[in-house]
Amino acid sequence: MYAVIMAGGKGTRFWPRSRKTRPKQLLEIVGKRTMIKKTIDRLSPLMSEESIYAVVNMLHLEETMEQTGLPEENIIVEPVGRDTAPCIGLAALHIERKDPEGIMIVLPADHHIEDEESFLETVSAAKVVASRDGYLVTLGISPKSPSTGFGYIEKGELLGEIDSREFFRVERFAEKPDLETARRFLSEGSFSWNSGMFIWKVSTILEEIRTHIPSLHAGLMEIREAIGTDEEMDVVSKVYSSIEGISIDCGIMEKSDISVVIPSDFGWNDVGTWASLDEVMPRDEHGNVVKGKCLTVGTRDTVVYGRDKLIVTLGLERMVIVDTEDAILIADKDSSQDVKKIVKMLEEEGMDEYL
Amino acid sequence: MYAVIMAGGKGTRFWPRSRKTRPKQLLEIVGKRTMIKKTIDRLSPLMSEESIYAVVNMLHLEETMEQTGLPEENIIVEPVGRDTAPCIGLAALHIERKDPEGIMIVLPADHHIEDEESFLETVSAAKVVASRDGYLVTLGISPKSPSTGFGYIEKGELLGEIDSREFFRVERFAEKPDLETARRFLSEGSFSWNSGMFIWKVSTILEEIRTHIPSLHAGLMEIREAIGTDEEMDVVSKVYSSIEGISIDCGIMEKSDISVVIPSDFGWNDVGTWASLDEVMPRDEHGNVVKGKCLTVGTRDTVVYGRDKLIVTLGLERMVIVDTEDAILIADKDSSQDVKKIVKMLEEEGMDEYL
Repeated sequence: MYAVIMAGGKGTRFWPRSRKTRPKQLLEIVGKRTMIKKTIDRLSPLMSEESIYAVVNMLHLEETMEQTGLPEENIIVEPVGRDTAPCIGLAALHIERKDPEGIMIVLPADHHIEDEESFLETVSAAKVVASRDGYLVTLGISPKSPSTGFGYIEKGELLGEIDSREFFRVERFAEKPDLETARRFLSEGSFSWNSGMFIWKVSTILEEIRTHIPSLHAGLMEIREAIGTDEEMDVVSKVYSSIEGISIDCGIMEKSDISVVIPSDFGWNDVGTWASLDEVMPRDEHGNVVKGKCLTVGTRDTVVYGRDKLIVTLGLERMVIVDTEDAILIADKDSSQDVKKIVKMLEEEGMDEYL
Repeated sequence: MYAVIMAGGKGTRFWPRSRKTRPKQLLEIVGKRTMIKKTIDRLSPLMSEESIYAVVNMLHLEETMEQTGLPEENIIVEPVGRDTAPCIGLAALHIERKDPEGIMIVLPADHHIEDEESFLETVSAAKVVASRDGYLVTLGISPKSPSTGFGYIEKGELLGEIDSREFFRVERFAEKPDLETARRFLSEGSFSWNSGMFIWKVSTILEEIRTHIPSLHAGLMEIREAIGTDEEMDVVSKVYSSIEGISIDCGIMEKSDISVVIPSDFGWNDVGTWASLDEVMPRDEHGNVVKGKCLTVGTRDTVVYGRDKLIVTLGLERMVIVDTEDAILIADKDSSQDVKKIVKMLEEEGMDEYL
């Protein structure tokens, strides 16, 4: 079994801690290890490091190698981001050279999983469905709330069960809904959150790319010839400059007849914003999540992410405070989706030293 | 004419900028000069620096001398704080040696005055009332709101008018009232805020101390003998260790028959809390007061007091943010009176490095 960790994210919503050269997956957001390191460590019962690949932007190559300790040849560099379908196709080519009939699991580098044992059991079940039945498997997350921050997957016909984990034909993928729609999804009971995790045979996904995104497949075939030669990076760059960005969800999973979903529940969280930290980190008796040297007085439901400087909060409610060496963010929790707008403003203002 | 600037304040409500060795009067809170420097500069049309005295705690002697440039002999050190009556009595002794019939004005070191010209005109009028009529004069401030943060002075009989400034017999001094009482004071129209500013003849105040606080007067007489000798500090320390702390308001002004008040209006503000900065500093179009490098996004009525570090605020309302080298305060504006509680907590926790 092989893993592909998609680590091309920019993570602007974790500014000021996340920066161009240090996006969310390379930060210690939850606990003491970085997100990508935790993602890799989580897989260790299933495979050795030689079987784990990471796809990164050139900007993060060095830091990713240092943090993960993965073999150099397992770190795949994309010249530009073209969404998940090209990323997955490129990684599939690398694994194909070792093991064309291998099973690959595709994972985002920056998500949190609470119950690792349940996660591993689900992946094992998915592996059987992918290898034995030849399906494209995605792990759906049983929704906890009518979130408007995730895409949803509607399940169709029940196809079978492995180790008490059911798998269903995918009826459809739904984009991030409005609140009313999200509430309907939740009440209907047939929807999962789209976690962005997939399991399939290398040969199956490449075949499905050929069927559903032939232009991408053509590009991948050019790259396949060049892998391991001096021309590799040039060919990858040429192909990437010509292909369109497209997600694996839209490009393959929605169109394919062999997409299945395993509804799961292993304490998944995409840790999308500073405010979401209170879902994945221990809270004090007043609902505060505090890291660093901090004195919280009359303060409730607040996230404080400090460093060496003393942070004193007084009379706060539902706030986010993040201190870094050169910048401090103080935000209302309900505005924490807008942190990415700040990064845009800093770009526009030419304040590049903070990017 | 002589001035006595009472500069013994601790200013804990301006933590983390105010510290034990650097209380509010020694900080640049409003504008580019420190509060005490502004207080002294404001008097320059009335007198030379040789006539200005400052009463300080030993902890602040050096910094006060450096900031004010006052002659060394004009900086009077109190061994401990004993409220305003002993402080004023001690200063009166020093001035008496130069000019027993001189007029002295007593001023807090850390208040803001918007209309300096009107202030100087009021002081000139008060000087006449003090020298010609021998009254103890206090400057009352026409109240702008039913504040519960100040003491009040009720005026009685109209005694006269100088340069269109009326002066009244003091009916009574009222302690900081509750909101209902404050509203009544405001509607009755006969109350002023107690600004803590006084004008009188040196001989008059010493005589009134003899009448109303004989124990203090006895101590002062001991000190008078020792001033200028090697024993001066020892005698002051001995006297201060035995006398009781008492304010000039309670000890003299309330009891004396010759107390008068001049209701005034020169944009006075005691700048009592971080939140009050928005009353004395320019606000942007969203009501924010910003100092230092700051990006305010969706933020209203907030005070940001930064340094070199970039501070980004997002979706805030009515907050106070103060950054210093080793500590950051983030407070709700309505809690800014409680900043002094933080200082107490830091003391109790033994976090002396932040005091």
